[in-house]
Amino acid sequence: MADPVVLKTFFDKVDNLQDHYVERLREAVAIKSVSADAAFRDEVFKMGQWLVELFQKLGVSHESVDIGTQVLDGKTIKLPPIILGTYGNDPNKKTILIYGHYDVQPALLEDGWNSSPFDLTETPKHQLIGRGSSDDKGPVIGWLNAIEAHQKAGIELPVNLKFCFEGMEESGSEGMDEVILKESKRYFVGVDAVCISDNYWLGVTKPCLTYGLRGISYFKITVSGPGRDLHSGVFGGTVHEPMTDLILLFSKLVSPSGEILIPGINDDVEPLTEKENKIYESIEFTLDEYHAAIESKTTIHDDKIKILQHRWRFPSLSIHGIEGAFSAPGMKTVLPAKVIGKFSIRLVPHMEPDRVNALVEKFLTEEFAKLGSKNTLNVECAHGAKAWVASPDHWNYVAAAKAVERVFNVHPDYTREGGSIPITLTFQDALNKNVLLLPMGRGDDGAHSTNEKLDRSNYIEGIKLFGAYLHEVAAIKAD
Amino acid sequence: MADPVVLKTFFDKVDNLQDHYVERLREAVAIKSVSADAAFRDEVFKMGQWLVELFQKLGVSHESVDIGTQVLDGKTIKLPPIILGTYGNDPNKKTILIYGHYDVQPALLEDGWNSSPFDLTETPKHQLIGRGSSDDKGPVIGWLNAIEAHQKAGIELPVNLKFCFEGMEESGSEGMDEVILKESKRYFVGVDAVCISDNYWLGVTKPCLTYGLRGISYFKITVSGPGRDLHSGVFGGTVHEPMTDLILLFSKLVSPSGEILIPGINDDVEPLTEKENKIYESIEFTLDEYHAAIESKTTIHDDKIKILQHRWRFPSLSIHGIEGAFSAPGMKTVLPAKVIGKFSIRLVPHMEPDRVNALVEKFLTEEFAKLGSKNTLNVECAHGAKAWVASPDHWNYVAAAKAVERVFNVHPDYTREGGSIPITLTFQDALNKNVLLLPMGRGDDGAHSTNEKLDRSNYIEGIKLFGAYLHEVAAIKAD
Ligand SMILES: [Zn+2]
Ligand SMILES: [Zn+2]
Ligand SMILES: [Zn+2]
Ligand SMILES: [Zn+2]
Repeated sequence: MADPVVLKTFFDKVDNLQDHYVERLREAVAIKSVSADAAFRDEVFKMGQWLVELFQKLGVSHESVDIGTQVLDGKTIKLPPIILGTYGNDPNKKTILIYGHYDVQPALLEDGWNSSPFDLTETPKHQLIGRGSSDDKGPVIGWLNAIEAHQKAGIELPVNLKFCFEGMEESGSEGMDEVILKESKRYFVGVDAVCISDNYWLGVTKPCLTYGLRGISYFKITVSGPGRDLHSGVFGGTVHEPMTDLILLFSKLVSPSGEILIPGINDDVEPLTEKENKIYESIEFTLDEYHAAIESKTTIHDDKIKILQHRWRFPSLSIHGIEGAFSAPGMKTVLPAKVIGKFSIRLVPHMEPDRVNALVEKFLTEEFAKLGSKNTLNVECAHGAKAWVASPDHWNYVAAAKAVERVFNVHPDYTREGGSIPITLTFQDALNKNVLLLPMGRGDDGAHSTNEKLDRSNYIEGIKLFGAYLHEVAAIKAD
Repeated sequence: MADPVVLKTFFDKVDNLQDHYVERLREAVAIKSVSADAAFRDEVFKMGQWLVELFQKLGVSHESVDIGTQVLDGKTIKLPPIILGTYGNDPNKKTILIYGHYDVQPALLEDGWNSSPFDLTETPKHQLIGRGSSDDKGPVIGWLNAIEAHQKAGIELPVNLKFCFEGMEESGSEGMDEVILKESKRYFVGVDAVCISDNYWLGVTKPCLTYGLRGISYFKITVSGPGRDLHSGVFGGTVHEPMTDLILLFSKLVSPSGEILIPGINDDVEPLTEKENKIYESIEFTLDEYHAAIESKTTIHDDKIKILQHRWRFPSLSIHGIEGAFSAPGMKTVLPAKVIGKFSIRLVPHMEPDRVNALVEKFLTEEFAKLGSKNTLNVECAHGAKAWVASPDHWNYVAAAKAVERVFNVHPDYTREGGSIPITLTFQDALNKNVLLLPMGRGDDGAHSTNEKLDRSNYIEGIKLFGAYLHEVAAIKAD
């Protein structure tokens, strides 16, 4: 266990510096590093440079990896660098790799922000409102603040750190996989575990460690018939309509209660154990909270554990929409010539995207043949990503749980998430090391929404959490 | 039977005047009477005035019915008048009411026209290309040309004529139904039959008389669930998805071979008789032609008679699309909160829109209940119009068939159409008289497309046809 006196000294220093840290976050939020819009690309570079300067100030050695160019809005523009950093290289210490991103989602005052999105604004309830405050500038700067507090308190950092900060996370993490794969044999050699702070508490009061994410297989199924859109009055009743076929295929996929009907799909789902079931019982989460989040009471299950399990550890299938059909308001009597149906399956351990794709393709092809239609079917898996799950028993998690207890005086909840953060799996597979998701913000931070915020307490206690985690990592016996 | 010598004199006069008639059409096409665009409203009025001046020149007495204003593109603008005309009022003659419209569809050179759309251009194959040439300026002017040819040939018109020309047909026939209903007790008193020339031959070589049109019931079914769109990763598997429910409802409507599955819907369909079946045998129509029109070979039936019957005299159901779901290219993992599915049923005799709506609503409500979903369903019939069918044995049709034989030396095909021309039914119901659809143009005229055309021969022979029809009407014994 980490030395309580040392931690106390560190915590006090963080408390003393808290206004300074808020000012630092304000500076970073003011840089409009929106990666999705070519007009803001200079600002993304500026944000990268801002981080490099902070690295220099703190004595973190660094490298900027140039990942080339992209075509955006019809222009070829430079991609922002992936910034690597190293702080300490004592062979007797463990080495933790920290990932984060310095780009942000777009934000416009007229979207409904209560204050200018790039001017960090503190409310009377001490919410720090601003684009990127919680996703992901707060956490990224949090790590550097933790180093600074150690330096100012005269405490040696008990682990070596590696950093990997990208500037394209909100826009598909261009070039990131390649860099992780390449650097796993060079810059990241010697890393013992990975920590990512780019998600959120489940609710608003209790800290959590996140140990699983669902994967996804995204499908586009195209049914083509006539060479052009037809008028339903003139042609209806005489041609095989692509919409009819697509709807019938769609109707075979999932039941109204969410059960996936594609044969074989559920076979690979890891069985639920008694032990795992237990984890869910204590999680702080209520049905009312969930109804508030979806703004209705249309949940399939009314039981907390079932809801969480169907979000996190069971697969689901959602039909997103149809490209090529009539989608505007009003009435149009079109008979669409070609329709592209889109649906996705959320994957869980041990579903493999390749096997899922094969099952989907086989099933849809067979069902289409049964229709006796002269139209043409094409099934395409447009994107596939495996689920990720880590063992909460690994020392990396045990250390983080102890850190949570030190800072918050509670044992954390162990959560998973329904969506995917593909980078997590890339790090795990490339480095073959445990990956921990250690969130700083709360479930209501509104990462990609208007009025994104980070509570001042989450920011400041988060800096303490990050530091405490490193001390617990140093103290724990790695297996 | 009409006097062959008189007809020959009339036909010769029309042939003599044909260049004059083409020039007259050119003048009319040059007036950009696009009713859908407020910027062209003056031109629609100008076109109405042009017709009034032609009426005056020919001695047709007339009235302009002011139908008030409309709001278009945010402005309140005047509606173009409905122009009524009377030519002759001999109580010993039959009276025929002629309907047509003087407005046209929008047209821009950059849409892909080979020549300026409002400059009538004659090709080496004698196609008169120009917006409105076939729909509906050629036919409207055709009637007036026929009167003029009679006058110049010194032949008395053997019937009385009433005219009803509107300037809003391409934009929902604003105010038209009310005028027909009102004038049925005043201006249209004494009318014996109605003739509308605003459709087309089935193919490109053989004239036809059109005696039926399908109606339509257009449905919007709304499934609502969450209060906002959700992310399928975060929420998929835990909420009743409106898309899943809508797809399952859609899947119950129609089979891949076009059979409507809603119980009771087919009960009211008029049984096919041997006699009716016979009509279809001789119709000039080939499968190849149809495959060319739909630009594929995805017809449900490969038999000419079945194709025509399913187009014209059997109901059909088409699913048009979904409002509220993801419809753009690319991938989006949205779980739509509210989706509005749109489909329509083409109605045939003796289906009643009210009964159809009741059956659809009952069926969908029952099927939705079976889903066990917590979402909410709303079924709305957004538009309903009955089918129309006239007896081809009526003297109005017999006279027209004789006229076709006089001009083209063939017996016409008897066709129906799959779409609706609502005015047809309005005239029939308001006047309680037989309505004949007597097309001037060919099936490939491209009425609402780029390069709309009217073949010179269809225009000139059409003028003869209109005149001959009036003579045959006069000669025939009305029952
Ligand atoms: Zn993020
Ligand atoms: Zn984000
Ligand atoms: Zn028309
Ligand atoms: Zn038209």
